[in-house]
Amino acid sequence: MAEHSVTVENTLSTLLSDKKYTTIRDILVTMNPADIAAVFSGVPTEKLPLLFRLLPKELAAESFVEMESDQQEALIRGISDSELRQVLDELYVDDAVDIVEEMPANVVQRILAQAAPEMRKEINEILQYPENSAGSVMTTEYVKLTPDMTVGDAILRIRRTGVDKETIYTCYVLNNRLLVGTVSVKSLLLAPSDLQTIDSIMESNLITVTTHTDQEEVAQMMSKYNLLAIPVVDGDNRMVGIVTFDDAMDVMEDEVTEDMEIMAGMTPSDKTYLRSSPIDLFKHRIPWLALLMVSATFTGLIITHFEDQLKAVVCLTAFIPMLMDTGGNSGSQSSVTVIRAISLNELDFGDLGRVLWKEIRTALICGAVLAVLCFGKVMLVDHLMLQTEGVTVTVAAVVAMTLSLTVLCAKIVGCTLPLLAKKLGFDPAVMASPFITTIVDALSLMVYFGIATAILHI
Amino acid sequence: MAEHSVTVENTLSTLLSDKKYTTIRDILVTMNPADIAAVFSGVPTEKLPLLFRLLPKELAAESFVEMESDQQEALIRGISDSELRQVLDELYVDDAVDIVEEMPANVVQRILAQAAPEMRKEINEILQYPENSAGSVMTTEYVKLTPDMTVGDAILRIRRTGVDKETIYTCYVLNNRLLVGTVSVKSLLLAPSDLQTIDSIMESNLITVTTHTDQEEVAQMMSKYNLLAIPVVDGDNRMVGIVTFDDAMDVMEDEVTEDMEIMAGMTPSDKTYLRSSPIDLFKHRIPWLALLMVSATFTGLIITHFEDQLKAVVCLTAFIPMLMDTGGNSGSQSSVTVIRAISLNELDFGDLGRVLWKEIRTALICGAVLAVLCFGKVMLVDHLMLQTEGVTVTVAAVVAMTLSLTVLCAKIVGCTLPLLAKKLGFDPAVMASPFITTIVDALSLMVYFGIATAILHI
Repeated sequence: MAEHSVTVENTLSTLLSDKKYTTIRDILVTMNPADIAAVFSGVPTEKLPLLFRLLPKELAAESFVEMESDQQEALIRGISDSELRQVLDELYVDDAVDIVEEMPANVVQRILAQAAPEMRKEINEILQYPENSAGSVMTTEYVKLTPDMTVGDAILRIRRTGVDKETIYTCYVLNNRLLVGTVSVKSLLLAPSDLQTIDSIMESNLITVTTHTDQEEVAQMMSKYNLLAIPVVDGDNRMVGIVTFDDAMDVMEDEVTEDMEIMAGMTPSDKTYLRSSPIDLFKHRIPWLALLMVSATFTGLIITHFEDQLKAVVCLTAFIPMLMDTGGNSGSQSSVTVIRAISLNELDFGDLGRVLWKEIRTALICGAVLAVLCFGKVMLVDHLMLQTEGVTVTVAAVVAMTLSLTVLCAKIVGCTLPLLAKKLGFDPAVMASPFITTIVDALSLMVYFGIATAILHI
Repeated sequence: MAEHSVTVENTLSTLLSDKKYTTIRDILVTMNPADIAAVFSGVPTEKLPLLFRLLPKELAAESFVEMESDQQEALIRGISDSELRQVLDELYVDDAVDIVEEMPANVVQRILAQAAPEMRKEINEILQYPENSAGSVMTTEYVKLTPDMTVGDAILRIRRTGVDKETIYTCYVLNNRLLVGTVSVKSLLLAPSDLQTIDSIMESNLITVTTHTDQEEVAQMMSKYNLLAIPVVDGDNRMVGIVTFDDAMDVMEDEVTEDMEIMAGMTPSDKTYLRSSPIDLFKHRIPWLALLMVSATFTGLIITHFEDQLKAVVCLTAFIPMLMDTGGNSGSQSSVTVIRAISLNELDFGDLGRVLWKEIRTALICGAVLAVLCFGKVMLVDHLMLQTEGVTVTVAAVVAMTLSLTVLCAKIVGCTLPLLAKKLGFDPAVMASPFITTIVDALSLMVYFGIATAILHI
């Protein structure tokens, strides 16, 4: 947590126990909604309504949006119906939907009962779209223009209706609910004459998403085309809403966190780390841990199968962790690189050939360098310095050869599985280190014992 | 690559060989700069200047900004000085700086020679800021207002000067170069009267960054406070530039890619995957592979040290991969969760106590469940079904106990190291799976042989 918030928090809690409400109010009004929410997160929930009432109406609503959902819930339960109605009146529809989605049923009922009829209708509409779709993150409040308006008309319309809109900087030109163009406020202000018509200055080369487009794709398109807002249309190209850049930035952050969680063998979680209980963390972590533990049975079986060889040359055992780890690391490097390139839309299954060719050449260079290093290290450290029993030139050669082959297998598996997952409609992020490691372990042991049996004649 | 671009690419290459330039131009002008750049990336470099000359001036410059740096270089080398000057005239300063940063010295000289004197001066100034700082990604083109202007004056100033500014939607109120407030175009347009003064409607509660603020922090602040642009000030609070949301989105993407690369044991790369040669990939991958391979020597030493115990109960070897992998996976889960929370500013070193307490409780639950599962699996599969030699109830108990202790060690190491790295000023992302796995491997083997020696009396 930022040090600034902590200090303000301490000051506030002293002022609160001294009942210095005017001073508290004077401090809070100088702060930004996100910082007020951070400070509130450290306040006991029973004090929340008291503090909240000190805020001016608009700042109160903006801070409310930034709060964690458990704090929002406590606050809603602590304020009156008319206070709730005032907060709701100040909210944008998309923020109201975000809040409703996190609340238990009885709180949702209270929110819907206090929302203005128009907002209630819009909340209900947005709630019907699938989770993580453009429809579920859009807002229905945007500036509508018609093609035959003049620039002067358009500016007047913005002045009259703009106050309730989440963005006024991109306006949408509709013809019977069909989206026909966009106009930026910049082009309105810079238009040579107020009498020009909108259709003469609008951008008709449109970038749109549909209500069912995945939110991650929406965020990527906005980043690619540098858009402040992107229009959301239904199947018939009728405009239903917009997604704004601030929501796109939040989506990008959430999707990255989700990818990282999946890549580390966890099921994704909506809660922040500090708000997750050990039981929450356990639930998200145990499935992959248990699955991968059980699948390590195969690795055990391979070792058991070659028990006689291990008994004959016991020193072979000591190199198993190094071979497995290097294989795992090589595989993760390839899989993470490919997973990231897939999520940045740089790669898809059609590139498999190019990717394989690139990875095989990389693996050959990495494998050769590592093999030489490994051979040198085994001869120098294990053979000469430590004089470990049984470590001969031949054993060093077996280990080095296994290493380079393991790197090759690992890089092939690591780059292929994410592309295959993408093709089959799974999340490529699943094919990261934990999963790859388990497969590469088995492969590297088979290569190891295969080479050892052949060369050492055991 | 998106299928749309590929198709257009094929059409264009046919049209190009048929010399149908008018048709090509008609197609290109309907496209967005980012898509044109994507199509150009598949065109042979010698054809680039030809295609580029077909584009209208502004679209040409916008597409140029979106191109990969090697394509930009080829293009600059293929066009005349006066054409280069036209492109530069259309660029925003921050985009020009991005391009200059990627070019070899002789191309930089040519660019600076053709840039207008004012732009040359600004490019040189921005180039002096450290890489990845706010100064290095900012633009110096923004709308400046003074506190005593009226709303009407301000709108006039925007109309007169706005065309060259990257954003006009947030205007900056300066008093002798000191930043005293910001005004949005929304508040200008919605102001009740054109005669109001700027200082009566400006926001004076300012969020700023300094020229040396890290770009990742800049992007996070913009996301936290939902800003379209953030002002950059020098040490004396004098305004020097702004960072806009589109650059912040690019920074977020780049920083995430970098984090993921580091977390998978690679040194970060600026090139996209498909543009990296196997030698590039090798250079970014070999350092950690080699380092971790050599450090696996310790794991080998532990096994060598307990060779007699392994000879006495050979079946113990078969469980080593499962114990190491489960330990590695448990550690990665904790480290990745903590690394992500650190980069989202949710955690810092001061939270170590809370984090440890949370992870220890999680580890105890995960460890207990895994131990029970593991004991059952060993008894059922290895003892009863496969009747592996030497696998007794006691051995199963040793393996299960080791497993739960390994999970505990792994989660403690996994959550502590990233916070420690942050405290010591290193990148926490280094403390991800590859590094954690190597440490946890050694720990788990020591626990394993310790428990085995004590309980099995070997």
